[in-house]
Amino acid sequence: MSIQETIQNIATQARSAARELLALSPEVKNRVLLNMADELLKHKDSIQQENKKDLAAGEAKGLSSAMLDRLTLSDKVIDSMIVGLKEIAALQDPVGEITEMNKRPNGLMVGRMRIPLGVIGMIYESRPNVTIDSAALCLKAGNAIILRGGSEAIHSNLVLAKIFQDVLTAEGISPYAVQVIPTTDREAVNCMLSLDEQIDLIIPRGGESLIRFVSENSRIPVLKHYKGVCHIFVDESADLEMANTIIFNSKVQRPGVCNSLETVLVHKAVAETYLPIMSKKLQEAGVELRGCVETCSIISGCTPASEEDWYAEYLDLILAVKVVDGLDAAMDHIAQYGSLHTESIITNDYTNAQRFLREVDSSSVMVNASTRFSDGGQYGLGAEIGISTTKLHSYGPMGLKELTTKKFIVYGEGQIRE
Amino acid sequence: MSIQETIQNIATQARSAARELLALSPEVKNRVLLNMADELLKHKDSIQQENKKDLAAGEAKGLSSAMLDRLTLSDKVIDSMIVGLKEIAALQDPVGEITEMNKRPNGLMVGRMRIPLGVIGMIYESRPNVTIDSAALCLKAGNAIILRGGSEAIHSNLVLAKIFQDVLTAEGISPYAVQVIPTTDREAVNCMLSLDEQIDLIIPRGGESLIRFVSENSRIPVLKHYKGVCHIFVDESADLEMANTIIFNSKVQRPGVCNSLETVLVHKAVAETYLPIMSKKLQEAGVELRGCVETCSIISGCTPASEEDWYAEYLDLILAVKVVDGLDAAMDHIAQYGSLHTESIITNDYTNAQRFLREVDSSSVMVNASTRFSDGGQYGLGAEIGISTTKLHSYGPMGLKELTTKKFIVYGEGQIRE
Repeated sequence: MSIQETIQNIATQARSAARELLALSPEVKNRVLLNMADELLKHKDSIQQENKKDLAAGEAKGLSSAMLDRLTLSDKVIDSMIVGLKEIAALQDPVGEITEMNKRPNGLMVGRMRIPLGVIGMIYESRPNVTIDSAALCLKAGNAIILRGGSEAIHSNLVLAKIFQDVLTAEGISPYAVQVIPTTDREAVNCMLSLDEQIDLIIPRGGESLIRFVSENSRIPVLKHYKGVCHIFVDESADLEMANTIIFNSKVQRPGVCNSLETVLVHKAVAETYLPIMSKKLQEAGVELRGCVETCSIISGCTPASEEDWYAEYLDLILAVKVVDGLDAAMDHIAQYGSLHTESIITNDYTNAQRFLREVDSSSVMVNASTRFSDGGQYGLGAEIGISTTKLHSYGPMGLKELTTKKFIVYGEGQIRE
Repeated sequence: MSIQETIQNIATQARSAARELLALSPEVKNRVLLNMADELLKHKDSIQQENKKDLAAGEAKGLSSAMLDRLTLSDKVIDSMIVGLKEIAALQDPVGEITEMNKRPNGLMVGRMRIPLGVIGMIYESRPNVTIDSAALCLKAGNAIILRGGSEAIHSNLVLAKIFQDVLTAEGISPYAVQVIPTTDREAVNCMLSLDEQIDLIIPRGGESLIRFVSENSRIPVLKHYKGVCHIFVDESADLEMANTIIFNSKVQRPGVCNSLETVLVHKAVAETYLPIMSKKLQEAGVELRGCVETCSIISGCTPASEEDWYAEYLDLILAVKVVDGLDAAMDHIAQYGSLHTESIITNDYTNAQRFLREVDSSSVMVNASTRFSDGGQYGLGAEIGISTTKLHSYGPMGLKELTTKKFIVYGEGQIRE
């Protein structure tokens, strides 16, 4: 069988499994998730044995220790997968919810019912725990999933999917609801991306080059974010102590993630007072500052920023700093250099707070809060399958609901159109 | 300037106009729409003069009379554009609505704010009134629009856009919020479809080949429907008189539109009773019936249906008819041959009605109602920009709300992440 045929078969079977999932009760789906949690514990040894094959191959290939670390299914990682499954089982089932039900003048009742998207394709890099987290979220939302992980995790992914399929089969559900692509051939990705009749949504997770590749080659809608260049604007009326605490937290608490802070914009009226306070605390924590001319003239130990710095997602202890004329200049800067991820204003001015919330176009816009809160768990979505910075079909952190859509339903009593 | 540069410029200007539109009050947007209604009336003569150029060129090119009819901006068509503008001005503004606002344990208030999508590209065929209808809906939802109409309507589209731009300028709004692509070169479409950084959504309206071309070549999300193969299933418990009235209405009232009926599925237990009643009424109205073997054995004057008939969108007085074993067989048929547009069940059985609503995956699913109701106006959406049969980002008839998205907003008081 050619790769094309293999992928086509997988997708056709996923499409047919998706029809079965449509009719499953929340009870059955939750039982599958809880059984899967039990089975992961039972099969820990065999999972780790398969994982060792991947680790050995990775070492032989000379993967970095950070890469090997992400690839390892340690006891701790398996435990966190088990906890994740139980948490997803405990979430409210989004499917079947009926909203906006209205009576039309002719007596028709018209509303919307939340339904699964159908078949979701995940394309991701090394972490094999994504296999279980994604499959669990997709299944709970009633979707079949096709998983394409990194080639270096193929043994781990296949054993995890096999256990999931056995749990599905034991419940009388099609095992094709959760499938891992069994080949590491790169051509498989291109085949997947062309199957717009079988697959409803592609979610890529990984580096910018993977995401660009997927989005440029897909005929299927893609939910993605390239990068998180998050901004904080310190307004003239800001509580400067609050600004300092929030900026420190946004930059330093976990610099390697997409919702960490990359650029601070400071209102010129408070620059001379605030920048020395800010730089002291950040520099003590080892943060390198790259500033505009005015910033560099106010604080010491600041490198002049180049044009690229305003676009940079450092994911590191580096921060770009710019003095701006006011709110409009701050919003102009964000519109030009931002990545539509997360921006926060520190202010005590009512009008400026409301304007910032309304006029900044990013997927998360905040007042007086750390950008690090931009996260499905922190927002109360329960579990997150990713963050979208494209406005369709979902914008910002995506939980269970974002893996569904709505159809129109109509209750009639024999009405015809005049 | 090359075509590529022209389109790139248009898109960049649209993107910048979209930022302005974000901040407009409903009052200003409505004033633009009402002024535009006045201006259409004032400029009727010059509009019809430009339209005559298109009509003359169309005649010279040998367009069919149906095509010329759709191209004509008669007094009646201009009046309907004016009425449409006033109706859209009267609709509630969807932008700025805040929903799902929740207090998190740390005191953060997290909710979602409805925002415009940004820049929308419309690609459509001959009717020039689409230019005004689409521009008005997009503007009301806060979006900039780039319009690419059929080459045969270029003079009409350009004069309509010019009037719209003058109204925008008079209100101090960027005229680039409404732009018609000034060239009829086909390359312009390819250029548009590649600008995924500037354009947020493409909506194609027209024949299946146009829509396939757009969807296969676009790097921007596309909202589309290829065709409407709508089904009605007459269940065992159906009120047969109601079935007859609804089927007649769905097929005959306006056969040339996407929500008209194409295939009837009849429960075998009522086939012998019902099919003669149905065929009599339909055949008297000139409807050609194409049936399965069993159907043809029950009624006279029925042509045997081929496999293609089950996929067919006739848009004509032709109806495919099949006898099925029951609800599951009917739903299997719809899943295999349907187009995800609109399906209706005629039944008096509670469980079957609920199962049909839940398990049929189409964008509109009905009980005891004519498929002809599948329409934004009939559903109370106010005005419709199209019907989507793709599940992202909107599924079914699309009104103003479907031209928007939601971002997360967060009100804090200095919270940081632990």
